[in-house]
Amino acid sequence: MTDFTQTRPLFDLPEGVIYLDGNSLGPLPKSAAARVARTIQDEWGQMLITAWNRAGWMDLPSRLGDRIARLVGAEAGSVVLGDTLSIKVYQALASAIEMNLGRKVILSDSGNFPSDLYMAQGLCKTLGDGYTLKVVAPEEVLGAIDESVAVTMITEVDYRTGRRHDMKAITDRAHAAGALAVWDLAHSAGAFPVELAACGADFACGCTYKYLNSGPGGPAFIYVAPRHQNRARPALSGWLGHEAPFAFDPDYRPGRGVERMRVGTPPILQMAALDAAMEIWDRVDMNALRATSLALTDRFIAGVEAACPDLTLATPRDHTSRGSQASFRHPEGYAIMQALIAEGVVGDFRAPDILRFGFTPLYTSVQDVDGAVAILARIMAELRWDRPEFKARQKVT
Amino acid sequence: MTDFTQTRPLFDLPEGVIYLDGNSLGPLPKSAAARVARTIQDEWGQMLITAWNRAGWMDLPSRLGDRIARLVGAEAGSVVLGDTLSIKVYQALASAIEMNLGRKVILSDSGNFPSDLYMAQGLCKTLGDGYTLKVVAPEEVLGAIDESVAVTMITEVDYRTGRRHDMKAITDRAHAAGALAVWDLAHSAGAFPVELAACGADFACGCTYKYLNSGPGGPAFIYVAPRHQNRARPALSGWLGHEAPFAFDPDYRPGRGVERMRVGTPPILQMAALDAAMEIWDRVDMNALRATSLALTDRFIAGVEAACPDLTLATPRDHTSRGSQASFRHPEGYAIMQALIAEGVVGDFRAPDILRFGFTPLYTSVQDVDGAVAILARIMAELRWDRPEFKARQKVT
Repeated sequence: MTDFTQTRPLFDLPEGVIYLDGNSLGPLPKSAAARVARTIQDEWGQMLITAWNRAGWMDLPSRLGDRIARLVGAEAGSVVLGDTLSIKVYQALASAIEMNLGRKVILSDSGNFPSDLYMAQGLCKTLGDGYTLKVVAPEEVLGAIDESVAVTMITEVDYRTGRRHDMKAITDRAHAAGALAVWDLAHSAGAFPVELAACGADFACGCTYKYLNSGPGGPAFIYVAPRHQNRARPALSGWLGHEAPFAFDPDYRPGRGVERMRVGTPPILQMAALDAAMEIWDRVDMNALRATSLALTDRFIAGVEAACPDLTLATPRDHTSRGSQASFRHPEGYAIMQALIAEGVVGDFRAPDILRFGFTPLYTSVQDVDGAVAILARIMAELRWDRPEFKARQKVT
Repeated sequence: MTDFTQTRPLFDLPEGVIYLDGNSLGPLPKSAAARVARTIQDEWGQMLITAWNRAGWMDLPSRLGDRIARLVGAEAGSVVLGDTLSIKVYQALASAIEMNLGRKVILSDSGNFPSDLYMAQGLCKTLGDGYTLKVVAPEEVLGAIDESVAVTMITEVDYRTGRRHDMKAITDRAHAAGALAVWDLAHSAGAFPVELAACGADFACGCTYKYLNSGPGGPAFIYVAPRHQNRARPALSGWLGHEAPFAFDPDYRPGRGVERMRVGTPPILQMAALDAAMEIWDRVDMNALRATSLALTDRFIAGVEAACPDLTLATPRDHTSRGSQASFRHPEGYAIMQALIAEGVVGDFRAPDILRFGFTPLYTSVQDVDGAVAILARIMAELRWDRPEFKARQKVT
């Protein structure tokens, strides 16, 4: 599907809101409410325990994984859903670092989402014995990959600036140095075509509640390259990752392929909502999506730069170096975002000074972009420190 | 509430089914469908990202934790929801073992649910350095607690037999030997009054989709005794367990109290269903629940023993030594359970030979018990090996 005027009516968006925060929480696909209601009433309510087989609940994490695989350029059978992104990052890291015994450095960058850094710090403490997380500036990643590095842990798109790393270049450099590459696709999956297999990524993970629109707390996913699937040890070795969960074997034996990365009982209501969202995604041409996303983002950047000289672009202009968001800096960014939200333009503020706006062709139109620019321009022109938002901000600081 | 004829109408149970499997997946509280629909349409759909604050999503894991705390005898502020039971077991174990440096043995028993054993095996491999899981028979646990044991990891009620451990005795013995006690309440929470604080438990965890009726894949919970909360290091150190998640600090600093055991973004749709289930639980007198549960279980055991001499009771007769289920052994247990399910009596089979039946006063009546006994008696009397269930079974073996 390349005509995005056909997808917008599939979402429930409140009247009078220009929603540029789908990179934080995607909006509600209209079909999700009925899909979840069916799971609750017809499956849970009527089939009870038998729904695990009769309604196909048990296989849902793999079936959804195969559908997400297409969006991120992964091989069939290499993606499975479950848990949260932080847990999936931990699993990927723990497996990868153990496949590279003798090396003790996890390399990441300061543009990574903090939870990834925290999970790596936690893993290093549990491993003890000199394991460390090394954090460099985003532009220093390539140069910092040396033969001490066991694994790189990079989030492709910076959650604040929208800056996009070169997945192929970093993965190649990691491999050349004997390291493994773990990718976090939080701001990539559903934002543009990702090519995990073509880039040779070793592990990847992502969340579904941003661009993929699965709803608050929707399950995460993990990718394990087929060449690693049968030797990656799951550190979080739960029963649904066992070779035969219902044999109730006292000893863990990892399951086949990526299935071993399953841990506990999957959240079926959240997966039902994701299933509804995927019915839209199954029909989306990712290249058309990317072209439209870039056009929307370019238009927004040009409009804001023309109308709001006090805002400084934080996102790279180069198309290959950005995701599907545009960010601007301003010292009073928090108060400006509050004023925007009060006027119906919903974006996000990220400390210390970032205003970020996500662009999602499935439901964001050229008219939305122009409307957001006009409202932002008016707010910036009327910037008066006696507005309640600014007063509130001044009290806080 | 002690009159359980008032609670049964609050559940959606299919016509003609006697559901004795609420210890595997609790049935649907009628209010859950509307509660989840409200979260989807009014909160996700209309409030979008602002629902994290406006709809109280961010605090839901703690608010639900305080309500569950009452059912398990925990102090306010000591329980938080999230993830799956396997993940919560891992967190509890990893924190506990690190608080007991120098000791390297996790002690468990062969009646534990395999996923707990698997998670412990995974943790020991990650820790390396001689850490081991020691598994003894359930009746040998007390005697096996010596000064090599860092932490006991015991599931209070055996998922197959319904045998209940003495939480106070094991916890006391663990403490006397300098060990910490981690309890898994999978078959305890909502089954009878649990007294975590009174027993001096150090850590505990449980799931909500069994007796608590939160639906398939409902979130797990973790308990950390107040005396440990500010020194337990979270091994899975996710951003929502950080002292200030929205400061986006590059370094992890654990949050206050049990909040540090949060990891990633909570599954809000599952939590909404749990919230609906808790509206029933908030009014339940746990002592009355226990009395009724024992009466139902006794009646079932007496009925089956009188009518089905070929079935051997696997559950202790002593009230203090059992949970809220009754299990019987039979070499053809699998086929018998298939025949029962075909007749509308839903229980569970657990390899190699266990038929298990859960009793949940909220929606199980004396008439259900008598009906189930009568149907089981008829099946056992008519036991003929040319029935399709038995033929199927014979093909499999």
